[in-house]
Amino acid sequence: MSNFTEVPTFEGPQCPLPLTHAERIVLGHGSGGRMTHDLIRTVFRAYLGNPYLNAGNDFARLPLPLQGQEVGHLAVSTDTHVISPLFFPGGDIGRLAVCGTVNDISMSGAIPLYLTAGFVLEEGLSLEVLERIVRSMQSAAEEAGVTLVAGDTKVVEKGKGDGVFINTTGIGWIPPDRSPLGGERAQPGDVVLLSGPIGDHGIAVLSARGELGFEAEVQSDVAPLNHLIQALLQAAPHTHVLRDPTRGGLATTLNEIAQQSQVAIRIDEATIPIRPVVRAACEMLGLDPLYIANEGKVVAIVPPGEAEAALAAMRQAPYGAESVRIGYVENQPTGRVILRTILGTHHILDILSGEMLPRIC
Amino acid sequence: MSNFTEVPTFEGPQCPLPLTHAERIVLGHGSGGRMTHDLIRTVFRAYLGNPYLNAGNDFARLPLPLQGQEVGHLAVSTDTHVISPLFFPGGDIGRLAVCGTVNDISMSGAIPLYLTAGFVLEEGLSLEVLERIVRSMQSAAEEAGVTLVAGDTKVVEKGKGDGVFINTTGIGWIPPDRSPLGGERAQPGDVVLLSGPIGDHGIAVLSARGELGFEAEVQSDVAPLNHLIQALLQAAPHTHVLRDPTRGGLATTLNEIAQQSQVAIRIDEATIPIRPVVRAACEMLGLDPLYIANEGKVVAIVPPGEAEAALAAMRQAPYGAESVRIGYVENQPTGRVILRTILGTHHILDILSGEMLPRIC
Repeated sequence: MSNFTEVPTFEGPQCPLPLTHAERIVLGHGSGGRMTHDLIRTVFRAYLGNPYLNAGNDFARLPLPLQGQEVGHLAVSTDTHVISPLFFPGGDIGRLAVCGTVNDISMSGAIPLYLTAGFVLEEGLSLEVLERIVRSMQSAAEEAGVTLVAGDTKVVEKGKGDGVFINTTGIGWIPPDRSPLGGERAQPGDVVLLSGPIGDHGIAVLSARGELGFEAEVQSDVAPLNHLIQALLQAAPHTHVLRDPTRGGLATTLNEIAQQSQVAIRIDEATIPIRPVVRAACEMLGLDPLYIANEGKVVAIVPPGEAEAALAAMRQAPYGAESVRIGYVENQPTGRVILRTILGTHHILDILSGEMLPRIC
Repeated sequence: MSNFTEVPTFEGPQCPLPLTHAERIVLGHGSGGRMTHDLIRTVFRAYLGNPYLNAGNDFARLPLPLQGQEVGHLAVSTDTHVISPLFFPGGDIGRLAVCGTVNDISMSGAIPLYLTAGFVLEEGLSLEVLERIVRSMQSAAEEAGVTLVAGDTKVVEKGKGDGVFINTTGIGWIPPDRSPLGGERAQPGDVVLLSGPIGDHGIAVLSARGELGFEAEVQSDVAPLNHLIQALLQAAPHTHVLRDPTRGGLATTLNEIAQQSQVAIRIDEATIPIRPVVRAACEMLGLDPLYIANEGKVVAIVPPGEAEAALAAMRQAPYGAESVRIGYVENQPTGRVILRTILGTHHILDILSGEMLPRIC
């Protein structure tokens, strides 16, 4: 969830708007929430906008220049990983870099095939650390069944980087008979599914940073979801939307979809799985788990007739055992996400604004 | 020239060798020369190696999973740009990021189609600077005829980055009737062509850094070469090798090709164009222009029967007006580049070892 293409809507003029934030980059511009969207709209899309970038998904669905041949499409996605620290319970920047991009590609319905990796190394980085990261990338790539086909290494002076940054870009293939997926395809009546408990990744990283004040027994959920997605699409071939709730969390992801599709999404707080340790950590720190990043979860929006089959397939698949139904799609109020709380009240869930947890991915 | 795949040969064991450099990353690991190759061999290829990565080119040539259909191949390349300063005579990091990847893709014979961009922004960066860079990317993409289809933005704390780093990854299409190109295809008798004067980019960047001690009237050659390459391949369809002499310069690029193809390459110093200001700057600073990075030049190795046509086509094409013939390919001594100096002596040109100009791209 970190692509330019994730901006939900852009109905303003095609030239840059006056910037409403300070005239300098702040950490909030990397949050994945409203400030990121503003930056994308006023700077990136203002100059670079085109139908692929503007489509509003975490992947681009691209034709090949072949006339009269049914060869399908390419799916492409890119993500730079700047997570701190490099190692955390359940994963590391290498596993994250592979899984993050495999997952974004998979959300298009594509079979992920190829990855590239671009490293920015800080002078003084231990080679043993680099080796551990590269080994972890290899192991994640093997699990996902993708091949790392091209790479690049740059080195910057000490104090001009932070250990390692890794860009991964992925290429997948969308078979010609696959029904297109995208954040703009949610329809009233659709069912909203979630592949398991939220908030694990964010809290695991905070724990590794020593910011919890206690030792939380929680592991990041970072995992490649492509096998789960393929199983889901086999069971529910008319699935409308798949998206992984990474930066900005579940609430931001659902808002993006509601706005892209111009529908309302209603979810029921009682049905959303959250591990007790994650809930406790959030309460202590004043964080809302609905806005915390996940790295191994998917939201699926499927037609009602395929919902049961989809859920059953997800529960059988790797990383999907705890899948649940969390809500449904309605006509009104368009572009909104409404949460039914455990107390039975309803409130509008907004997109994340500003920064909650910097450098979480 | 910054892909993992550029390592000329690797005949050692498949497990990591003991590291011969310090156990920490130093700037030389980013030089594009011997230390970069060592790092790639001992860390990246040891774990991530596969036929695509090991092919030894700046691009990967990839099949699509389509049986019995003649659809050609994909070409993929990735590059992260960490150049300092962000703006320099003749260009900026945005133009560089687009052209660098367009050029690597083009060296496969592919038609570049799509680019992705991943930004790492340092907290405190001026938005006006970011806008200038993004505008420059758009203008270079338009010139090259490629579309930026996906992007990502991350922000790191002040002092954990350096203004802007930009990863660009490119995807091109190699038509099925195109004869394959690669550093391993140079053959004895082939002619070596160069598209113009060397060293402009490196000296322009040094000048922008104030490291020359005088105001050099030299502009970086940063430019998209895809139109030149297409013209060249139309005139010389059996071209064997195309490579852009970026990090490590012309000498390193020719060494890579000589080693990949197991041939000798002989070049004649008197034929290699170098602008007087570049020559003067190099003499003053004790630099050898043969090792200085270029960002808008290509080395073409073509069969003798097509050399005249290739040269004529290059001279007519954008950025190729000063193209020249600089040498030829022989059987022996394999893996070596031999320079005939202006004095008439011969010496072996080695690959760049260590670091000459850090953060030149």
